Amino acid sequence: MGSSFGRLFRITTWGESHGAALGVVIEGCPPRLRLDEEAIQGELDRRRPGQSRITTQRREDDRVEILSGVYGGVTLGTPIAMLIRNSDARGSDYSELAGKYRPSHADYTYQAKYGIRAVEGGGRASARETAARVAAGAVARQLLRGVGVEVLGWVEQVHDLAAPVDPAAVTRALVEANIARCPDPAVAERMIEKIDAARKDGDSLGGIVGAVARGVPVGLGDPVFDKLEADLAKAMLSLPAAKGFESGSGFAGATGMTGSQHNDLFYADDDGRVRTRTNRSGGIQGGISNGEPVLIRVAFKPTATILREQPTVTQDGQPTVLKPKGRHDPCVVPRAVPIVEAMMCLVLADHLLRHRAQCGS
Amino acid sequence: MGSSFGRLFRITTWGESHGAALGVVIEGCPPRLRLDEEAIQGELDRRRPGQSRITTQRREDDRVEILSGVYGGVTLGTPIAMLIRNSDARGSDYSELAGKYRPSHADYTYQAKYGIRAVEGGGRASARETAARVAAGAVARQLLRGVGVEVLGWVEQVHDLAAPVDPAAVTRALVEANIARCPDPAVAERMIEKIDAARKDGDSLGGIVGAVARGVPVGLGDPVFDKLEADLAKAMLSLPAAKGFESGSGFAGATGMTGSQHNDLFYADDDGRVRTRTNRSGGIQGGISNGEPVLIRVAFKPTATILREQPTVTQDGQPTVLKPKGRHDPCVVPRAVPIVEAMMCLVLADHLLRHRAQCGS
Amino acid sequence: MGSSFGRLFRITTWGESHGAALGVVIEGCPPRLRLDEEAIQGELDRRRPGQSRITTQRREDDRVEILSGVYGGVTLGTPIAMLIRNSDARGSDYSELAGKYRPSHADYTYQAKYGIRAVEGGGRASARETAARVAAGAVARQLLRGVGVEVLGWVEQVHDLAAPVDPAAVTRALVEANIARCPDPAVAERMIEKIDAARKDGDSLGGIVGAVARGVPVGLGDPVFDKLEADLAKAMLSLPAAKGFESGSGFAGATGMTGSQHNDLFYADDDGRVRTRTNRSGGIQGGISNGEPVLIRVAFKPTATILREQPTVTQDGQPTVLKPKGRHDPCVVPRAVPIVEAMMCLVLADHLLRHRAQCGS
Amino acid sequence: MGSSFGRLFRITTWGESHGAALGVVIEGCPPRLRLDEEAIQGELDRRRPGQSRITTQRREDDRVEILSGVYGGVTLGTPIAMLIRNSDARGSDYSELAGKYRPSHADYTYQAKYGIRAVEGGGRASARETAARVAAGAVARQLLRGVGVEVLGWVEQVHDLAAPVDPAAVTRALVEANIARCPDPAVAERMIEKIDAARKDGDSLGGIVGAVARGVPVGLGDPVFDKLEADLAKAMLSLPAAKGFESGSGFAGATGMTGSQHNDLFYADDDGRVRTRTNRSGGIQGGISNGEPVLIRVAFKPTATILREQPTVTQDGQPTVLKPKGRHDPCVVPRAVPIVEAMMCLVLADHLLRHRAQCGS
Repeated sequence: MGSSFGRLFRITTWGESHGAALGVVIEGCPPRLRLDEEAIQGELDRRRPGQSRITTQRREDDRVEILSGVYGGVTLGTPIAMLIRNSDARGSDYSELAGKYRPSHADYTYQAKYGIRAVEGGGRASARETAARVAAGAVARQLLRGVGVEVLGWVEQVHDLAAPVDPAAVTRALVEANIARCPDPAVAERMIEKIDAARKDGDSLGGIVGAVARGVPVGLGDPVFDKLEADLAKAMLSLPAAKGFESGSGFAGATGMTGSQHNDLFYADDDGRVRTRTNRSGGIQGGISNGEPVLIRVAFKPTATILREQPTVTQDGQPTVLKPKGRHDPCVVPRAVPIVEAMMCLVLADHLLRHRAQCGS
Repeated sequence: MGSSFGRLFRITTWGESHGAALGVVIEGCPPRLRLDEEAIQGELDRRRPGQSRITTQRREDDRVEILSGVYGGVTLGTPIAMLIRNSDARGSDYSELAGKYRPSHADYTYQAKYGIRAVEGGGRASARETAARVAAGAVARQLLRGVGVEVLGWVEQVHDLAAPVDPAAVTRALVEANIARCPDPAVAERMIEKIDAARKDGDSLGGIVGAVARGVPVGLGDPVFDKLEADLAKAMLSLPAAKGFESGSGFAGATGMTGSQHNDLFYADDDGRVRTRTNRSGGIQGGISNGEPVLIRVAFKPTATILREQPTVTQDGQPTVLKPKGRHDPCVVPRAVPIVEAMMCLVLADHLLRHRAQCGS
Repeated sequence: MGSSFGRLFRITTWGESHGAALGVVIEGCPPRLRLDEEAIQGELDRRRPGQSRITTQRREDDRVEILSGVYGGVTLGTPIAMLIRNSDARGSDYSELAGKYRPSHADYTYQAKYGIRAVEGGGRASARETAARVAAGAVARQLLRGVGVEVLGWVEQVHDLAAPVDPAAVTRALVEANIARCPDPAVAERMIEKIDAARKDGDSLGGIVGAVARGVPVGLGDPVFDKLEADLAKAMLSLPAAKGFESGSGFAGATGMTGSQHNDLFYADDDGRVRTRTNRSGGIQGGISNGEPVLIRVAFKPTATILREQPTVTQDGQPTVLKPKGRHDPCVVPRAVPIVEAMMCLVLADHLLRHRAQCGS
Repeated sequence: MGSSFGRLFRITTWGESHGAALGVVIEGCPPRLRLDEEAIQGELDRRRPGQSRITTQRREDDRVEILSGVYGGVTLGTPIAMLIRNSDARGSDYSELAGKYRPSHADYTYQAKYGIRAVEGGGRASARETAARVAAGAVARQLLRGVGVEVLGWVEQVHDLAAPVDPAAVTRALVEANIARCPDPAVAERMIEKIDAARKDGDSLGGIVGAVARGVPVGLGDPVFDKLEADLAKAMLSLPAAKGFESGSGFAGATGMTGSQHNDLFYADDDGRVRTRTNRSGGIQGGISNGEPVLIRVAFKPTATILREQPTVTQDGQPTVLKPKGRHDPCVVPRAVPIVEAMMCLVLADHLLRHRAQCGS
């Protein structure tokens, strides 16, 4: 249980990090959508390990194969199955881990829950699973594009180093202009240095990813439990290492503003469209999109894998020391950007269909 | 769509704020649970408006009636329907609102989504709906108590006024000792003053609610989308006025610690049980509970209803001014405490059954 | 679990036969549907016990109250809660049953599954629960009417007495013209006599209900598991006493025709619409409606309640004799007609929304 | 939508008949189940085309690959993905079909619903999809075996030729002793002749598959919509060519017996276990298993593919004639046996977990 997401545009992911393959099945995708397979691969490339010197040096090719649901490049309305072979499954790196619980990983909880676990690389708990989400999200993104929705994420903070980002001005070109995926080039430079330093130190850093969805139609989101920000929160907290979520003004709005400062005042624009003068609501009111940009922020903890000795226990409860070696991701946030975007696309695509089902357009 | 929550311990709420009644149906509650109806009413009383001078002075009696699923005080395993009559439905207060969109409320988005809305009091978007959640949560709480789980929330911050709270030490008695529901009596005093001042000023304040679940069995939570913190995040962001969520170390851990500082080191306690020396993970690793206290924080924006004139637009897009009168809640966080607890109980009860389904205990 | 039905037009029923009330919550109903409450009550009246001399003489008023989701007679798009009070809850009739398992009832299986049961009247297993379905089905029917769909059922057979029914010619007036609800008046007369004779004999009879949906748009039904006839089959077999289901040619087509005889040949009608010359497919091909009338048949076993002594066992496994007294329904099929119609409406309404979600119209 | 089945033991199938591959993902399978992969392949071999002279002569190897969820031969509790490559995808056979609607196939309805279809072999509507169900059902069967449940199907009727089958006496060896899969060898002989004659005649036949589940624990099935026979009915009517379903006494009980004849009388056996003297209920009362054998029957229409000229229309609505050639299955029921078994296993496995979730054992 728990490997499916979405209600109408619904995905099911599968695969252990060191098994034969991993993949995803998308149900409910509308028919007659012309799929750009290169764009799907392009998103996977953005997520891929080894893409720059500040990510893990594991090399994974992550070629996606579409096995069903597409006919002559166009969706059939039937399930779209996508598969990614695991090419670099070096189980030997993990022999030392078989009997030891890595701190702040899922080794212990998986073992305790299931009484068994795939030892190599964390199995299902590995962030490798997110490749399947990115592939599915790329399909959702193409569906959204057809109704004018654009989803864009960026690195907003690495450890204590924050970039001033204007969600209205940020573009994909700015984000992809540097390997930190921070739209502020100067801060990006310092983030890269900081991550490099942590890597050399065998340590790791966390940070914050921001994201915006522009062009979201008014009316997406279902009261009362499936509010748009509730489903976004679930989507984001389901990501490995995610520890926090904000919508619109978030924690700062809750603790720094009064109601009279915080309320977004309505006006009608020149086209007679109802707009708000500010956007502390982050594009969502009462759980439903109001047509303003949807704004979220996601906090990721520092990577649990570090290249330092750490005391821990064996599976039998005996004290031991973990001596990791090899490759690690000193900071996940640059690679988390396409993953956050993918999840945001999945939530919006699902609510697009949900709204159409009930309200007819 | 969107009025159901949970997968096995599943609730469906219904009711507009000024309709005849509101209620909830619980599906999947295990049979032979002796239900303490007074305890259910007690939770509703904690949520009730008019309970203290810092909450809205609307008087709602909120008596819960159990209509099904209970036989001789014991659950049957069939749906439990609970109903709360709306006693203080003063529609006249709202006549002015019929054609005006209140800033940062759901008036506009409901109207845009559905092409119709229940004008009085926000209808389905009103926080009144949470009464049904609290009733259901009180049943979940009784189920959890049977396996040794205790859920407890508190006010951690009102606007910029934060209380130092030790989640290990906080008790219900401390929380309920003052009307701010802040376990630190000195800070509580200042919170009450601050809320009082805002009320007199016709303004409103936000804040942060913290919560802990103690005694959670190891193994609750389903990878990869239905991680325990993902479902908690959704639960919390589905609450009116919620804008942020943290699990464990949250944003502070992401931006203030390195991996070597953040990792929770394992050890075996005297009973041979695997424990962690710190709890930055907030009791959840890889989306699955690890036996440590589950820790969350929820940010609530300042109440949108304020007693000040605000410019806005009519339903026809004409500029107008809103002149609210009557009663409002200057700060929702004290009343949000039992609501946050209820949602946490619902998530845990659901995952308790889910774990039992798949893993058999 | 199990008290919800449908995916987008989704209902949850609740209530024991002798509890305070029973009811239903409808989620996902489109907004701005003008609800005819009299029509809802009218369907309940068709299902009501005591409506004629061939049904049980229990008197149940079955007045439906709409508690939410409707505003000025129009749906809001939010959950519609309907409640029916239990007026004639004579628990004393059942005192003898407390410790005895009635043959072919659910007493034993409920007790074995849950370890507890509502003794009076079968509790949740009582056919009384179908009142809630009929209320919900009446809402679905009004939604369907808006797109030109008409659903109509009739009694096709009582015990071995079959009526020749032409699904193309049958009308509601013909069905409602007699208390047997059989559109053939001559056969209806004999059915009534047969049921009367069974009643006097303290025995009971089964039969077959037929139903048609006319005007169903092409394209409803989702391959591969949620085929339209699969969801209809589930809907019908979820009814108390239902033991069989057929779609289109059913068992007779499977065992009496060859492929060359059975195939429905296509042609284009004068409007260029693709039609079939015969309708052995019952309006469904590959699980999807093809625009021809949807045809089903449902078999109901003879009522388990009979006014004769029967050997059985007590809850403690001791042999005993059951001596029923009072009122019973000698043949459920006339009252099953509105229930079958209600379930058919619910399935079609759900698939209408599902189709719109994915395919956009 | 519609490609998933089950609630806790949940499968999602994907794949067009002439695409690269087809497959299934199983979610919710309990961990630590030792999987016999040969047994899974063995079930696929029973379903495989070309297995005998009375089935289609298409050769499909149908080798199943397990790609995830299994570690050292044991289930992990994570999704089990299985893949079957399409080896004999001869699209050229279907060139004639591109523009013509085959009578009683899904060509027209798919085209009308989705505005596109995979022309070759019916795409998703092909019975080839059931290979994925059989693979998943084989896993469910192994789970059920662990709790003593055995599921067995057989051919009960081919066209008008019925075999007298005693569900208590039938064994897998008897069923598999002949290519008709009819446990009565004499009738089987005549069935084979009849199917052979139909094949030579270019025609096709339907029939009835019977099935029993023995050893089902008391208590499976969820009132009121998810009754065990309701979920079985849906499972069976979701199969290609299925047109009817019966549980227990079915249509014959409804039309040939009175209540006093039909009721299953309770007694306590020597072990004090409550049993019924007859089993007209088919092992299910009030939707819940009562410990007696679960008995069902499924009607399959004659195969729509016949080797005869048939008038039809083109996609543009023009009259034309279809001249099929090549290979066809003159009677699907022998190959339907493992498919019916697979669906029955899936329903029972799901309800096993559902019962455990709510009732704890």
